[in-house]
Formats: sequence, structure tokens, C-alpha cells
Amino acid sequence: MTAGILGATGYSGRLLFRFLMAHPGVTRVAASSRSRAGLPVMDIIPEHLTERASGGTYCSPDELLGACERSEIDVLFSALPHGASAEAWKHAATANKKLTVIDLSADFRFSDAQLYKHVYGHDLADAALARRACYGLSEWNREAIAKAGIIACPGCYPTSALLPLLPVLRYVRPSGLISIASYSGISGAGQALKPNLLFSERNESIAPYSPGTKHRHLPEILAGLKAFAHVEEFDDAAESSAHGAGGGNSRLQWNRAEYGESAPVVFMPHLAPMTRGIMTTITVPLAEGDAERAVRALAAQYANEAWVHVLDENTMPDTANTRGSNAAHIGFAREQSCLILCCAIDNLVKGASGQAVQNFNIKFGFAETDGLPLYET
Amino acid sequence: MTAGILGATGYSGRLLFRFLMAHPGVTRVAASSRSRAGLPVMDIIPEHLTERASGGTYCSPDELLGACERSEIDVLFSALPHGASAEAWKHAATANKKLTVIDLSADFRFSDAQLYKHVYGHDLADAALARRACYGLSEWNREAIAKAGIIACPGCYPTSALLPLLPVLRYVRPSGLISIASYSGISGAGQALKPNLLFSERNESIAPYSPGTKHRHLPEILAGLKAFAHVEEFDDAAESSAHGAGGGNSRLQWNRAEYGESAPVVFMPHLAPMTRGIMTTITVPLAEGDAERAVRALAAQYANEAWVHVLDENTMPDTANTRGSNAAHIGFAREQSCLILCCAIDNLVKGASGQAVQNFNIKFGFAETDGLPLYET
Amino acid sequence: MTAGILGATGYSGRLLFRFLMAHPGVTRVAASSRSRAGLPVMDIIPEHLTERASGGTYCSPDELLGACERSEIDVLFSALPHGASAEAWKHAATANKKLTVIDLSADFRFSDAQLYKHVYGHDLADAALARRACYGLSEWNREAIAKAGIIACPGCYPTSALLPLLPVLRYVRPSGLISIASYSGISGAGQALKPNLLFSERNESIAPYSPGTKHRHLPEILAGLKAFAHVEEFDDAAESSAHGAGGGNSRLQWNRAEYGESAPVVFMPHLAPMTRGIMTTITVPLAEGDAERAVRALAAQYANEAWVHVLDENTMPDTANTRGSNAAHIGFAREQSCLILCCAIDNLVKGASGQAVQNFNIKFGFAETDGLPLYET
Amino acid sequence: MTAGILGATGYSGRLLFRFLMAHPGVTRVAASSRSRAGLPVMDIIPEHLTERASGGTYCSPDELLGACERSEIDVLFSALPHGASAEAWKHAATANKKLTVIDLSADFRFSDAQLYKHVYGHDLADAALARRACYGLSEWNREAIAKAGIIACPGCYPTSALLPLLPVLRYVRPSGLISIASYSGISGAGQALKPNLLFSERNESIAPYSPGTKHRHLPEILAGLKAFAHVEEFDDAAESSAHGAGGGNSRLQWNRAEYGESAPVVFMPHLAPMTRGIMTTITVPLAEGDAERAVRALAAQYANEAWVHVLDENTMPDTANTRGSNAAHIGFAREQSCLILCCAIDNLVKGASGQAVQNFNIKFGFAETDGLPLYET
Repeated sequence: MTAGILGATGYSGRLLFRFLMAHPGVTRVAASSRSRAGLPVMDIIPEHLTERASGGTYCSPDELLGACERSEIDVLFSALPHGASAEAWKHAATANKKLTVIDLSADFRFSDAQLYKHVYGHDLADAALARRACYGLSEWNREAIAKAGIIACPGCYPTSALLPLLPVLRYVRPSGLISIASYSGISGAGQALKPNLLFSERNESIAPYSPGTKHRHLPEILAGLKAFAHVEEFDDAAESSAHGAGGGNSRLQWNRAEYGESAPVVFMPHLAPMTRGIMTTITVPLAEGDAERAVRALAAQYANEAWVHVLDENTMPDTANTRGSNAAHIGFAREQSCLILCCAIDNLVKGASGQAVQNFNIKFGFAETDGLPLYET
Repeated sequence: MTAGILGATGYSGRLLFRFLMAHPGVTRVAASSRSRAGLPVMDIIPEHLTERASGGTYCSPDELLGACERSEIDVLFSALPHGASAEAWKHAATANKKLTVIDLSADFRFSDAQLYKHVYGHDLADAALARRACYGLSEWNREAIAKAGIIACPGCYPTSALLPLLPVLRYVRPSGLISIASYSGISGAGQALKPNLLFSERNESIAPYSPGTKHRHLPEILAGLKAFAHVEEFDDAAESSAHGAGGGNSRLQWNRAEYGESAPVVFMPHLAPMTRGIMTTITVPLAEGDAERAVRALAAQYANEAWVHVLDENTMPDTANTRGSNAAHIGFAREQSCLILCCAIDNLVKGASGQAVQNFNIKFGFAETDGLPLYET
Repeated sequence: MTAGILGATGYSGRLLFRFLMAHPGVTRVAASSRSRAGLPVMDIIPEHLTERASGGTYCSPDELLGACERSEIDVLFSALPHGASAEAWKHAATANKKLTVIDLSADFRFSDAQLYKHVYGHDLADAALARRACYGLSEWNREAIAKAGIIACPGCYPTSALLPLLPVLRYVRPSGLISIASYSGISGAGQALKPNLLFSERNESIAPYSPGTKHRHLPEILAGLKAFAHVEEFDDAAESSAHGAGGGNSRLQWNRAEYGESAPVVFMPHLAPMTRGIMTTITVPLAEGDAERAVRALAAQYANEAWVHVLDENTMPDTANTRGSNAAHIGFAREQSCLILCCAIDNLVKGASGQAVQNFNIKFGFAETDGLPLYET
Repeated sequence: MTAGILGATGYSGRLLFRFLMAHPGVTRVAASSRSRAGLPVMDIIPEHLTERASGGTYCSPDELLGACERSEIDVLFSALPHGASAEAWKHAATANKKLTVIDLSADFRFSDAQLYKHVYGHDLADAALARRACYGLSEWNREAIAKAGIIACPGCYPTSALLPLLPVLRYVRPSGLISIASYSGISGAGQALKPNLLFSERNESIAPYSPGTKHRHLPEILAGLKAFAHVEEFDDAAESSAHGAGGGNSRLQWNRAEYGESAPVVFMPHLAPMTRGIMTTITVPLAEGDAERAVRALAAQYANEAWVHVLDENTMPDTANTRGSNAAHIGFAREQSCLILCCAIDNLVKGASGQAVQNFNIKFGFAETDGLPLYET
């Protein structure tokens, strides 16, 4: 198969390039960059010096999109920023219906146009395309991913929160506010030239930001809970759902009467002084007895998964152990009043490029581990 | 005044030495070390090279304690580990009733011998001395500190949790589980030679540990809440109180009937890849309308404090901004369902040596800012 | 005395503000900022929250310069970038001859206009003012500093190289190429928004840059050697001298015939993954027997200095030990073929703001330690 | 082929395990550990959770060595410390002459027993075995590696110094002292429980150590230069040679008359605050005109190498770009007086486990890139 990458100079795009170059089912990878078209890929990916020949040069986005329209590219990964991503590829996807698009941006993570606009402040790129899209949380949406023409890969924080929460919330009902605290390595902010991303500002610093409902990933978490745990009617932010496995036989009804206008989930993201990794620590208040059921559901859910591992009780994960790997490690501990869940992932791998390749594997029938790193080298 | 430091080679002891050497009211600082007696202080405090003359040499603990008994030392700071600390100085404190002891260990943080044994696994060093002790949370226990012969300085995590929580819990009652997530720099673990404290293990790593009720600082937090916010009958862990301002006119009764056997507070400590600093992020579920009262109480509580600063709403603190300072910075944000509190301190300053000097200032009538750093140099 | 700071929002300017606020001889500090005029200083110096009252607000550069002209300010520190710094204050310095200017930029580090233009690519701001300027390497130019109206503070790399090299090269002549390798914390690059200064780029990275003669600090080092060690005729880059103690009785003649056209000093700067500190490691090839004389000269030179400390032979310094201090620590080791010198400083303190305050102390007769930190707090 | 690893719990042993598990020519990897025999490998290699089944459990060293003697293991990698390594496997290697041993320790890096004892303070493990050993600097000793029964893998510092220096010193003669400054990530010190390896000690610290001739890797560098660049008679430390391609037609005679008693090479190692990577910066004084020849020799030497890359002139390498890769990146810059060489490697990969696998590939006829990472994942 032939693959293209839109925006292959950022952290996610560069990792995608590496993964796809090493993928047994990919024969050619075309990397595009508006600013670096014509330059060798090795200039911006110096790690890739050893592959001078095969790395080739960046093409322009237009060249890549032209190749997509002419069916020379089977699958297009987009690592462009939200707002710009779907705009860039929507013409090609409309012209060539057989093109599969795997989008790492937020552009099609919500099917609900109104919710999207509320969260991102601008209109959904294309309502017709949105209907062809599915939410690419690999372990929870395989059937839809295998059929979808457009796969919207989840954000890094939502991946780290949904993986531990979903099995629990499918089977037990929290007795109070779910509190999610996440700590992200700085690469999660990409290469944006912002003063607060300078080394001297972030070193020796833990800094919370966008408290509570202010971060765009909370609505994505709520929508994911609704779609996959069938948790209905959270609050306004979750009125719309991620477009996933759909509802129907939902086991759990959270309704407004119970929670008033308040969200049953609070999210606190922080910047941590490391390059890669997210640690998400969650407390789920539970009624007595429910923790036992929750823990059994968690273990059963991922018992046969290649990339999600539930550690022994009271064994806590460590972002260092998932660095450079597509794995998610989930730890848990039971208190009388609540269940504690901790999930470690590499924000650039399982939280971005790795999950994108995993979705590619699902879509095209490869083994889910193909082309993906087990561990840091 | 003359001061002595037991265990002046660890991170806290060394900082204490610096602060006291620069304190306008201290004329002499005797630093003791079992392993380094007779060696120049500058060998272990190379930063102090510039003060060769005045730094002098380490004396042995016995020499220092002898000087305490002979009243040559007015105030003895102990930076020894819990279990060893009070054992070391209890004879001197019994022999010389005028000696003030400011203990940075956990040895007298609980007045209840049973609770102490439950948490630390060994007996309280001396029940009679424990009765002379008070809990040295400076801003909340000034009267007792000024009168006490023994001041037990709070742990670093409890300081960072109690400062933001106490004003809130004095006036409003949480509607559910309070979730505390703390992220500590590695210096909090001292200089213990443990594999998990090596640079190569901690770099690029966020790692939770001692989940839920497993960390010794949770009972200390609960006891502090009971003592100063008059929150009664938490659970078994808080049956006993920190020996503080005493009870009586408690505004709030949290009782077992309401919470079942469950603790109303869950605590999740993490190691973060930085040397200094603690960020404690707390979610307090509140009934509608209570957040307003809570926020007013918080602002009013610290309006005139030199060392505790409440930031503007939605402005989050940063451990980098309290590094090297005795200040605590508290940020807050209101959600419909809860109040978010974030508190940044330097674990070695406000969380240890700085608060010890602040307590010294309170006890002996100095200005609370004397000898203490406003900010990192 | 009253002090003003031009450009008080960068790393150096903020440290200057702190040092001067705490200086016993300074009654008022006016901080200016073009972009933040009218805003509270605490907004950009959040560490300074504890001093809301005295911190005041930023004034505009024009207001500050007006105050300088009206003699309301005794000493003006400039932490503006080179090229902009002298341009900003030259009118005020011309109008008010009694104003002392302490400039942290490179604008008057060279008295030779031709050399300055060669190195910095633009003309010297003002030739007349340059004649009133002296090179502020505190320990080596006290007499000139005490008399000068304009003090040009040395660069961070030159300070760390000149302090160990000067005593050696005054007394012995190297037998070959002096090799200087320097490793700097990232704060040395200031707050410039460059991609290579992002946390994710610098973490886990040691990166050399501007190799050999390509860094602007090599000519400054050569000029310093010529001026203070009386090392003559290095090469074209050192044809001109720093304006220091002047020549005359030079002990050592390095001439072109001996070294051909080649520079006798090579300089290799690197970025290191830390915020603060410079480690400069130097090898000086020496004829047999010369190392002994060199080492004696080194020890004698700094025996009575408050801020420069020569460690015992084979004891190596550590940037961690000078962090937050105005001290320089010099280690040395003798090999048969050469002398090894290692110098650690804090690039923002002894390498910038601290040395500026030390020069202020020299100029106005304060103790050289006044207002300056002995060690990190 | 079947492989065994002695000491598979340290940083190098764990990486070896990963590389060999993924190697296309290896069917089985037996990992031994004295302290962890019987425990699952995943307990100490948590990154390997995803491979529970194949990772198996640690065997005891005796079991592994027994399997070696019974010819059940084709190649034995030893990641034990020097002094212990050859002692452990020498019986098995003597009993089973067909066993290939690839030793990552220093035990057989010198063929000269007297030099070994001088440097390491104890006797060479076995003189007869030493004669079967060769120095495994892959790119410089392929013929010997392919024939050797014992391959002594070079140290990390020597690898980073020899790769850039050897091509230069084969063709041109330095005009003075070669100065080598190296900066190593902390993982180079392994998991030893030493106070100076704690996170809080190393963070924000660049610290030189073992200055000049005091580090054990300098004699190894000198022996490597003698063996492969045919640089004779350095000084006492290099009297003995590494056992490499042998002498004979040496192009260059450096003799004592010229350099007196002095070593022509000085080495300055430093600890840098990062986990992985070595940056070695070298200045080689050269006569006019020689730099041109040196640079041509450097480029020609590695033009067809898979793992050593010479960057464009004045382009400097970065340890971040070789992290997790077996590549070495060499940058160079020409000054009038000298050539500057900078070499970046990952100390654990090209500097240890990666080069061991590369030697395995050479010995057994695999492609040199087999099983080895191109870049960090």
C-alpha cells in the first residue's frame, strides 16, 4: 500500500513517517510540507540520516493531494492542526471516494456540528464528510474503523482517560464527581513558538492550565463516555456524541435531574517537565461493592489486547515504561469510597501517531501490532 | 539567639543552615552530623564555600545535645528522620525545659499515640513530650506555636493540601469525595539511596505511588482538617486529631453515618521529574452556591498573609514561581459541580525548612519574613 | 541611591530587579518595559507576589530615561539586547554626565569600533561614550570600574573563561592551542522564541553550536586575555583590546610568527539541558614545570576574593553548586602535558545580573557582597 | 541462533534483551540474573509487558552457563561489570570452544596484562582467553571480529572518541595536544546506588570528573589510536596496544622525544543532566593544509557505512538525534589552527548494546543493521 502524510514536519508527522517507513505493508511513504517542499526529509528528521536514499524529499501538499485524487495514494494521514486539516484534504476525499483518510487533528472527532463549533469556535469543515467519519479509539470502535472512510484519531488526553474509564463506567455507576488529573510531557503542545514552551520556562515546573471545563478535551472525553460506555445525558457539553458504536442498550442513565446542571466529570490538565508521556490519574467515587465489579470489568476488557495492559492491583504505571511504545499501562487501587485509576501512555505514540497506525492496521486487516514499537529503543 | 541543627547534611538540614546563618536574630548556628563530625560544613555544603570562616565544622550530635542541656543553645532544629528524631533529642528536651525544639520529622505530628503507631508502625517517642508539642502549620496555629516548647513542622504534602482546603472546609461542606492529586519534586525523598531515585529512573517519568490511603500523609491531612477546619469524625484514620487549636465550636460535622465507612478524602501522590516543588491539585464537589462562599473565605483568610497568596480566579500557580521561596501560591477555578484548588510550594522551603524558620519567628517574636527567601536567586 | 532598569522583563532584568530590591544601599528601583508599561511588576515576576506593594508597576522606557535626565535616578542598568541597548540610553547618558550606566549588553564591551562592527555587524552606538566605558570583569578591573561612567558587563562565556585563564596566562606561556569547551544552560539564550529553545528540543540533548571562531564571545575572550593578561598580538580577532587596565609591561608576547595566522585559542560552546549554569572546561598545553607556577598563580590571585574560589587540586566544580549564587568555582588538574581548568558559574548571576551588581558595589563603595546571593535558596 | 545474556537486569542488559528478541536471526534469548532468577523478565523490564509470553523468566547464571557448555547457546553476551564478567564465563568458554562470547565489560579490552592491571587494579581474568579476544570497534576491526571467539566491546567514551579521531590520525599528524571533552548522560553510570547519581544531585548540573589521565577510558582511547591509526609510542599508558589489526606499516610515529613525557591526548569526561547520549567534542591542532586532508579522509572513511554519518561541514550533531539509535553522527569544523570534531552517540546503543549486536551481525554474517534501531520510537 502507498501512504501519504500531510504535515510531516511536526512531532506527530515525523513519528508517523518513521512508523510507516518500517511498516511491512507499506511500500511507499510520501511526506508533504508546505514550507519544506523539495528539501530532503533527513534535514528535518536528522535521526533519519541513515535512510538517505529511501527518505527522499518532501513534496508540496498540493502534489500529495493530487496523487491522492489520482489514486496513487491509498491512505492519507493528516497531521495538520485542527481547523486546517480537513480543509486541506476535503477536496481530495470528495473526489476520490476510495481514499482512506486518517486524521490526527480534532476536525472530525465530533459528529455534531453545533458541539464542534461550540468547542473549537469555527464551523465543522464539511457535514457530508463528517458522516463518513468515525472516532478512532482503536480498542473500542474496531467495527466502525474497519468500515470508515475517514478515521478521526482521538486526542492524547482523551485516549488516556477513556481507556481506563470506559470499562468501569459500562458496568458501574459513580456515586459522585469523577476527578481526572492529567500530566503531559511538553511535546503534546507541538512545536508552537510560545513563551511558555521554552525550556527555561518548563524545566522545574509543574503547571496546571485550562482548569475544569476550559480544556477542549473534556467535551471529547464526555462524548467518548457517552458513545462507548453508553453514559447518556451528561451535560450540555456532551449533548452530542462522538460518532461511535451508537447507543441503544445503554446500561447506565446519568441524567440532569441527578446532577443538576453540573458536569459529573472534572478535568485538570498540567504541563510536566518531560518531553513525552501522559499520566492520567482518576478518582471514581463508587458505592460499596461496586469497586469489585469495576475491577473485574477492567481486567476482562483488556485481557486479550496487545496494546492495553492492566497492572496488578496497587501496582502503579510509570510514563517511563510506555515511552516510545504504543502501549497503555493501567494501574488501579481500591478505596472504600472510590476506585483510583492511573493510565500511562506516550502522548506521541498511543496518544497520536501510534494509534493512527493501529487504526490503519484495523482498517486494512493488518495485525494491530504491525509497524508499531513495543518499547523505547 | 543560638541555634543548633541535628542532621544538617540532608537537603532540609542544609537549607536550614543557610537560612539560620542569614537570620538577623541568630548569632550562632551549630550544625551536627554523626558521619561528618569534625569535617568542615563547606565540604558537604559546597555552595557555602564563600563562608569558610563562619561555616565552621560539624560537631557530633552528642556535642550539640550536650550544649542544649547546658543551655548554650536556645533552639534546636531537628532534621533527622522520623523514628530517630525525637529519640535523639528527648533527653535534652527533658533535661532543659527552656529548650525549644522545632522538629521537621513526623515524630510529634500526631498527639494520639495509637494513631501514630498505626501510621508509622512504631511507638510515639514520648507521651509526656507529645503533650508539650503543637502542630506547626504556621498560618493556622500561631497562638499554640508561640507557647509551645516543641513544634512539629507539617509534612510537605499536608502543607500544600491544608493551606487551600482549610478556609474552604471551615465554611462549606463538600457534597462528595474530595480528590487530592499531588506532584512532588524528587528532593522530597531526600538523599536515600534507592534505585527509583536515580536520575535515569526519574527523568522523563511521572509515577504515582502509595495510592489512596497508603501514604502516611493522608492521615496527617485528615487530622489537620479535623483540628483546624473543625471537621469531625472523618474516619478511623482521623479519629485522632492533630494537636491544634482544639475543637468545640465546630461548624461542620462529617460523620460516619453520612459517609459510611468511606473516607471523604482520597490522596494520590506522584513523583515528578524535577528537583523541587509540589503542585497539589484538589477537586472539592460543592452544592450550587457554595463555591461563591468558599472562594470568599479563601481570599479573606490569606488577604494579609506574607507567605500565602491567593491568585486571581482561573489563574493557575506554577511550581517554578515558588521555587526557592517560602511562599505558597493558591489558584482556584469554579465549576458548576465543584471547586478546583491548586497550590504550589517549594517542598524544601514552605514544605520543610522555611516553615520551620517561620515557626521560629512566630515563637520568638521575630517578623515572619525574617531570614526567609522571597524568591529564588 | 535610586536605580533604574531598562528591559526588566527578561531573565537578567528580573534577577536585577530582585537583587536591587534587596540591596541595603538602594532605596528605589524603577523597572521599565516597553510592552508592559503600566502593568504590575508582579504580573511578569510572579515570584514577587509577596512584595505587591513595593514592586509597583513598570514604567515606560521613556519615563525611566526622563527620570535619568532629571537626575532622579543615580544608576541605570540596561538589560536590553545588544544593538538596542546603548541606542536607548545614550541620550540620557549624554545629557546627564553624572548618571552611571551599567550595561549588560555587548554594546560597549569592545572599545575598538572596527572590531565591534566586525563581530556584531553594525556600528558602535557612540564613539564618544565608548571612551567613557570600561570592561566590567569585576575582579580584574576594579580601579577602572570605580572611575567609569559606563560599565560594560562581560558576557557569560567570557566571564567563565577569563576568570580561570587570566592568572595562568599572566605568568606562563602555553605551548600550544588552548581549547575551551563551554556548556551553557538554556536561560543563556533568553526568552527568544526560537524553535531550538523549546523544551522538547533541548531536553535529552547536548548540542554544540557556532564552532571555533564563529561565536561572538571568542573575540571577547581574546580581547580580555590581551587586556588583563597582557597577551599581545593574538590574531586579527584580538587586534583590538578590551578597554581595561591597558598594556605596557606585558610579560608575554604571543606573536603571529609563532602561531602563523592561527588563533591560539579555540572555543566550543554547547547547549546543555538545564536552565542555569555554565561549565567551562579548558586545556592549556604547558611546558614541563610551568604547571606548578600556573597553579600557584591561580591560587594566589583569588585567595582573598569573596566571589571566586579555587578548589583543591583535582576537585572538580559543579554548576549545581553555583546555581543561584554570584560565586565562581574553579577546579584544576595537572597533566604532564597540560593544565586542565574547569570553571562553574551561574550564567544569570556571575555571568550577568550578579556581576552587574558587583560592579555597582565597586563603583559606589559598597561591600562587594552587598545585595548578592551566596547560594541558591 | 540461540543467545544468552549474563546480567540482563541493568540498562545495557535490558536493551540487549530487546534487540535480540526482535532480531530476525535469533530464535531464543535466555536472560540470566543472580538476584532475580525465577522471576518474570517483565517484572524488571516493564516495557516488555506486551510480550509476557515470550519474555519468559530469568534463569540463574549457572543455568545459563550450563546451557552454554552443553552447546545449547550459540552466543553469550555478558553485561556483567568488569572484574566479574570474564570470571563468570571463562569456564564455559574454555569448556565449549565453539561458544562465541560478546563481552560488554572492560575485561578483555586490553591484550596487555600489565596495562590491564595498571588501569583496572586487578589481574586480567585469563591470559589464554585474552589471546582469543579482539577489540570490537565494529567499523575498524571487522576481519578480526568475524574470526574471534571473544569480542570485547569498546567503552562508550572510547567509541565516541575513536570514530571521529581514527580517520584523521591515520592520515595527518597533530601539531599539538589533542583535547577531548565528553558529556555523558547519567545512564552511563548504570544503576549503581551512589549519592551523586540521584536525580536531585544531577538535575541542573554539569559536573566534570576524573580529570585528564584519571579516567580508565583514556588508556583505552590511546590503545585504540595505536592499534587502528597506527599511532605508535604515545606514552606509558599506551605502551600496550588494543589487540586489533596489528602494527607494521604505521604511517605515523609519535615518539617520546617529541612529546617529552607528556601524553598527546587529554580527556575530560563530564556528567550531563540527561539519561542517554554522549557528546564528545575534540580539538586537533593541525598544521596549515592538513585540515583539508583530514576532512577528506573522514568523509571517505564512512561514506558507505550504515551506522556512522559525517554531517556537512559546520553542521553540528545533537545527542537528541542519535537517541535510541545505533548511529554515530560526526560533525566537523575547520579553524586555521585546528580541526574540531564532534561526535554524538547513544551511550547505551552504539556505546554498548547496539555495537554488541552489530558485532554479533559481523561475526555471524547478518546484515549489520539487523535487529538494530534506526532511531528513537
